Amino acid sequence: MNAFARTFHDSYWRNRIQSVFAQLRELSGDGVGVTRPSYGPAETRGLDCIAELATEGGLAVERDAAANLVVTLAGRDPALPAVVTGSHMDSVPQGGNYDGAAGIVAGLVCLLRMRSEGVAPLHTIRLYGLRGEESAWFGKAYLGSQALFGELTLHDMERAHRDSGLPLRHYLEELGADVARIAGGSALVEPGSIAAYYELHIEQGPTMVARQVPVGVVTGIRGNIRHFRILCRGATGHSGAVPRWLRHDPVFALADLLTRLDEHWEKLQGQGVDLVITSGVVQTNAAEHTLTRIPGEIAFSLDIRSQSLQTLDDFYRLLQDECAIVRRNRGVDFEFDEKIFTPPGEIAPELERKLVGICEEMQVPFIEIPSGAGHDAAVFANCGVPSAMIFIRNEHGSHNPRESMDLDDFILGTEVLHAALTREAKCASSRST
Amino acid sequence: MNAFARTFHDSYWRNRIQSVFAQLRELSGDGVGVTRPSYGPAETRGLDCIAELATEGGLAVERDAAANLVVTLAGRDPALPAVVTGSHMDSVPQGGNYDGAAGIVAGLVCLLRMRSEGVAPLHTIRLYGLRGEESAWFGKAYLGSQALFGELTLHDMERAHRDSGLPLRHYLEELGADVARIAGGSALVEPGSIAAYYELHIEQGPTMVARQVPVGVVTGIRGNIRHFRILCRGATGHSGAVPRWLRHDPVFALADLLTRLDEHWEKLQGQGVDLVITSGVVQTNAAEHTLTRIPGEIAFSLDIRSQSLQTLDDFYRLLQDECAIVRRNRGVDFEFDEKIFTPPGEIAPELERKLVGICEEMQVPFIEIPSGAGHDAAVFANCGVPSAMIFIRNEHGSHNPRESMDLDDFILGTEVLHAALTREAKCASSRST
Repeated sequence: MNAFARTFHDSYWRNRIQSVFAQLRELSGDGVGVTRPSYGPAETRGLDCIAELATEGGLAVERDAAANLVVTLAGRDPALPAVVTGSHMDSVPQGGNYDGAAGIVAGLVCLLRMRSEGVAPLHTIRLYGLRGEESAWFGKAYLGSQALFGELTLHDMERAHRDSGLPLRHYLEELGADVARIAGGSALVEPGSIAAYYELHIEQGPTMVARQVPVGVVTGIRGNIRHFRILCRGATGHSGAVPRWLRHDPVFALADLLTRLDEHWEKLQGQGVDLVITSGVVQTNAAEHTLTRIPGEIAFSLDIRSQSLQTLDDFYRLLQDECAIVRRNRGVDFEFDEKIFTPPGEIAPELERKLVGICEEMQVPFIEIPSGAGHDAAVFANCGVPSAMIFIRNEHGSHNPRESMDLDDFILGTEVLHAALTREAKCASSRST
Repeated sequence: MNAFARTFHDSYWRNRIQSVFAQLRELSGDGVGVTRPSYGPAETRGLDCIAELATEGGLAVERDAAANLVVTLAGRDPALPAVVTGSHMDSVPQGGNYDGAAGIVAGLVCLLRMRSEGVAPLHTIRLYGLRGEESAWFGKAYLGSQALFGELTLHDMERAHRDSGLPLRHYLEELGADVARIAGGSALVEPGSIAAYYELHIEQGPTMVARQVPVGVVTGIRGNIRHFRILCRGATGHSGAVPRWLRHDPVFALADLLTRLDEHWEKLQGQGVDLVITSGVVQTNAAEHTLTRIPGEIAFSLDIRSQSLQTLDDFYRLLQDECAIVRRNRGVDFEFDEKIFTPPGEIAPELERKLVGICEEMQVPFIEIPSGAGHDAAVFANCGVPSAMIFIRNEHGSHNPRESMDLDDFILGTEVLHAALTREAKCASSRST
């Protein structure tokens, strides 16, 4: 028998995994991709499907006070902190089948396999099927994991659903959740009661495809500083009649600013600094702009991300400095809207090292990679739970119906997750090995 | 008596000039600025007002076959080519009182003064009150002067009015114009029958205000190369999850391109090359753009202007070269819409020299300055008529109700025009000087 005998590579587990993903797709297909609205029926059907398979496999199943699914394999010492895995079941509108669900399916088959093999963990192992991770539905992300740690507020309960307009409170009540408890900010689980959180997730960028590597060990979850709308104000003028030295041209000023930021970015990247910058929305004012007029203003958005809080702060100061230079050189002004800050999610170095060790031992090709997108793991991490993430290679990005994950890649990543949970929970097999 | 005795500085002429501008404003005020639509009633009222004053002053008045106003002071030798001045009466919607009208009023008072002083020019002197110079109304500029030289087509007759939607043909017919003759492309006047064309106009840029000089002698009328919409195409992606080396970011690509063009511009300007560049419309695609997505594309307009055909061609080639570099460096593509070309209007060097000589002689403070905007003078010039222009300082630019011309500046410029016409037409005074 080779190293992968009685592993997820075996046809029994391959078939089970394929079948779970097929069921989830079936339960939430929208004709284009899958749509599993946060706290909506398709999300519930997906979690029910996982619950049913868990029950059939002899695992304990319950729903917590925020309607998250909780699957448990009890440990020999219930007093010890639990080892936790999980991800989210919801999707964006017309999204893909793997963003979120892959992590739940991976956790499920890990627990099912342990149970079927009769392993007895010292620590309890728990799988969370979380709800409400996508901000698309209620305008806020990580609702399920934030509810877990008492991080939602009364104000959040009134957040309106993008389609129905009904408040989050309504959806939670329909699902039998304890709204008073959630809105009161009391944690459903103590961070100290969790020894470690491992989340498996598809990569949402193109790096692993480009690097041709199936598994990623996440080094950190990028935080961000965002401005929805920065206004660069100049002065309108006749496009033919105003010489360069008399212009206050906001378009050339913005080009100058972005080029300066890009040059810093290139340099910092060369020094190994983790950073990405995006200006996703750029617009001269449609009410006044025209071919033959120097426009009076141009508005743009900015999304600056890094794993490092220090880098975010440093780059934001650099942005201010460069704005001041462009302001002085070009006679324009910059008007900033509210600065929105999301802290980076710190990956626990010891867990990251464990994952790297497992990959090396099992000869799983991997890279260490930052997570550009946010994840529930960042909520766990920022609440004090040692957290780590495993990425699975995925084509075409996510948040679209074309996301595409190879079964073999998923199996490799799930094998790594299985090893991590087994070791973390100090499993002892009841059968001979 | 000083040099300006019996000049436009005298209170008689000052008052007359003020009164004409007041009447024109009265006849076309719109509550905000003035509105004199091309071939519309307010334009006609303005020209009628000029005609009435000319007739009162003993000048010959007629309308040509394109409904332009023609005021004539007959020369002693009718066989000699005429000396011509003029400008346009129409305005943009909610425009100012001086853009166009200033040149007609200047020509009128020059002819009235010559007539009242009994000067007898050898060459006939003619004033054109042109129609339809602003493209705002029928989507095409210089209709009146183009009709003069047989440059309009049957196709142009069908151009729809921006408000009524009725064709230009309808408006011309209402005014008693000879549509068949105009649409047939036959010239109403032979370029060879005009010795020189002088046009006085307000400056439409801020240079003369900045330089604190009342009169400009125009060195050339900038032509242009235009694109309404160039599309820079990249690839969409997650703003957090795509590293710099895997991006095809059209926003940073456009910033790079514009900064490269700006650097060339700065260098060329230092070498005394006449050039202005404007990107008046810049827009990511509102159907898909958002803060957290690298946009798939950005569209922008480009208006490149110069007095020199060579500079236009050279800079356009530079644009192509820089696009190729950005394309290669950043994995984006540029899609150009139709290239629109308007040739520069060449100022006759001998006329320009004469105007400079007159300013120096009369100690009128002046600068030599390119015209950034297009003018009827460019049509005359491109039809082979030796042409020149006098600019008057004007605050707040034009095409807006805030345009503001000082009466003293206007008088200085009109004095220069008067001298130029007098000399060009070889006037002999019938009174003793």
